[in-house]
Amino acid sequence: MAAGLKGDGLPDVGMLVSDRAASSALADTPSALPSAAVIYTRTLHAGSLRGVVVNSGCANAATGDQGIVDARAMGETAAAAAGLPVGSLAVCSTGVIGERLPMKALTAGVDAAAAALSPDGGPAFGEAIRTTDAFAKGGTFRLALPGGEVTIGAAAKGAGMIRPDMATMLAYVTTDACVLPDDLLAATRAAAADGFNRISVDGQMSPSDTLLVLANGEGPPLVGADLARFADALRAICRYLALLMVKDGEGAEHAVRVVVDGALDDAEAERVARGVGESALVRTAIYGRDANWGRVHQAVGQALAATGGHVAFSLRFDGVLPDGQGIDEVMSRPEYEMQVGLGRGTGTAEVFVSDLGHGYVSVNADYRT
Amino acid sequence: MAAGLKGDGLPDVGMLVSDRAASSALADTPSALPSAAVIYTRTLHAGSLRGVVVNSGCANAATGDQGIVDARAMGETAAAAAGLPVGSLAVCSTGVIGERLPMKALTAGVDAAAAALSPDGGPAFGEAIRTTDAFAKGGTFRLALPGGEVTIGAAAKGAGMIRPDMATMLAYVTTDACVLPDDLLAATRAAAADGFNRISVDGQMSPSDTLLVLANGEGPPLVGADLARFADALRAICRYLALLMVKDGEGAEHAVRVVVDGALDDAEAERVARGVGESALVRTAIYGRDANWGRVHQAVGQALAATGGHVAFSLRFDGVLPDGQGIDEVMSRPEYEMQVGLGRGTGTAEVFVSDLGHGYVSVNADYRT
Repeated sequence: MAAGLKGDGLPDVGMLVSDRAASSALADTPSALPSAAVIYTRTLHAGSLRGVVVNSGCANAATGDQGIVDARAMGETAAAAAGLPVGSLAVCSTGVIGERLPMKALTAGVDAAAAALSPDGGPAFGEAIRTTDAFAKGGTFRLALPGGEVTIGAAAKGAGMIRPDMATMLAYVTTDACVLPDDLLAATRAAAADGFNRISVDGQMSPSDTLLVLANGEGPPLVGADLARFADALRAICRYLALLMVKDGEGAEHAVRVVVDGALDDAEAERVARGVGESALVRTAIYGRDANWGRVHQAVGQALAATGGHVAFSLRFDGVLPDGQGIDEVMSRPEYEMQVGLGRGTGTAEVFVSDLGHGYVSVNADYRT
Repeated sequence: MAAGLKGDGLPDVGMLVSDRAASSALADTPSALPSAAVIYTRTLHAGSLRGVVVNSGCANAATGDQGIVDARAMGETAAAAAGLPVGSLAVCSTGVIGERLPMKALTAGVDAAAAALSPDGGPAFGEAIRTTDAFAKGGTFRLALPGGEVTIGAAAKGAGMIRPDMATMLAYVTTDACVLPDDLLAATRAAAADGFNRISVDGQMSPSDTLLVLANGEGPPLVGADLARFADALRAICRYLALLMVKDGEGAEHAVRVVVDGALDDAEAERVARGVGESALVRTAIYGRDANWGRVHQAVGQALAATGGHVAFSLRFDGVLPDGQGIDEVMSRPEYEMQVGLGRGTGTAEVFVSDLGHGYVSVNADYRT
């Protein structure tokens, strides 16, 4: 529904509801200043939610106690409108930080969204949660298991904080699989760790990031090997959504997988991967299609500062040395791997990053002006 | 001297030498992959150096064992040419990472520089260490103490890693004060902590950063209160040089002092100050002259992630609230303070940062192309 929160007439309120009791699992932002929606949603019973109400255009973040009152009203209005118990809907808001929700317009939008709930509403929901996304992200996936087929649906928006103020990452996954809440939570956390937590656009963390997974249990009960296969599928889907977010980055021309091996341990490898991938110097070099290995070397030196010990630095781009044959062609690819070796252990890690170009500066300097 | 290392005919080799034994103190990069020059210089007797030989155009970083051999040859050639003991000169190199020093051209330049050593050579030395600096940084300062007057000279180049590959921060301070090496080292470390370590351009760390202080002892011996006054002067001079580096940032239009108070302790305040000051979102907002407090709020939430506890966030720009009267005028100032309050303790910190604009992207994407 278009409730006028975004001011451009585009849909900005959406609801996703299970028509029967479901297992649910939440993963959200580690920010010390989470949004009011996140604070409110954390007070709910996370394992048995029935769905979510989302608005775009206003993040309801940095809005103090009043923001929490507003988030609660939004959730309770939505639950009542959909004929659901109080506290059964998660609340998500994405948009400008520091402004109150326009409750009158929002309530009208929520009522309209509840009245329009439909099994065919998936695409409309995907539109309502978009902000400046260049394309809608989601899909329907079928997983054939020995005990029967499971369907998984997904809708997501955002690209980390690549698009400030309108930048939150929201992702919703639904399935008819029958999964116990604790199992669903474990699978959700693993999927977030391997997917959304692997992307890094500009190193910025949103106060509103939320992943909600709902399993309504209409399908076959999943335990043992089937549960593991479901968890693998959930991980693959979240990874797919995360990569779409990196590729959607405003002004981004390259999506790069930074792979680090040879670290003392995985934690060290991750620190290096993030240090390299979030370096403004490395990211402008990616934009400039320059295999500037000195900048990667510098970022590695910084990431490992004060760790001591030997570093046998190596670097390839899709297997090609920085001064190797064909390097210019590799650097022009829309997607490639940056392979960083440290030669001092067995730790590995990966992150997915985009480049830093004029598009990013324009969007982020001119937004709101 | 112009030895051809930079290819533009500008001076690229310089020597700074004390004509008598001196106390000396070094502070250099914490990078885990320091340059060959830094590795070599660390092998010297840091408390009794006689000066430094510097080249620009080539960083001699990421050059392996051969780089260290080259750095040693550079230092020993310079010492011999100036008639000084082996190992009495620090070596600094700044420029492109990953390329070997052109030893033949460099040696000729070093010999010429040694032959041209002169008490009036200060300005020429300042020119030789410049790379893409928009202006030379340095000066001569006189400090009146009860026991007599002390002179302090300074020359510096760079702006952190704001200018990749040519970006190292080098700073040299000379004085005729008579200071014991241990006292000089303590004063040097305090000056670096309060000056060069307070600036943050893009969060990148150079493998070559070096601060060298030489005190030749011709002036009055400094102890007690006089020593403290000298240390204060050294700190003020290093802070002045550091601020010049921030203001010199390629494409930078604003130099901003980020001041954080109300943190649980000073370390937390520093983490927040750096998190805010290095945020690409905050820095593009500074460039866009947008008092976008939501981005600062977001960066604070990220910097304090997982710390727990209450945060009473507040923000002013030169004392003006983000929506206060005159805020547009404040945001257009070339220099202003961003005052961040956390309201949960007594910890404070400050960092100096510049904005992120199109100039930065152009320099860093197009450099080397």
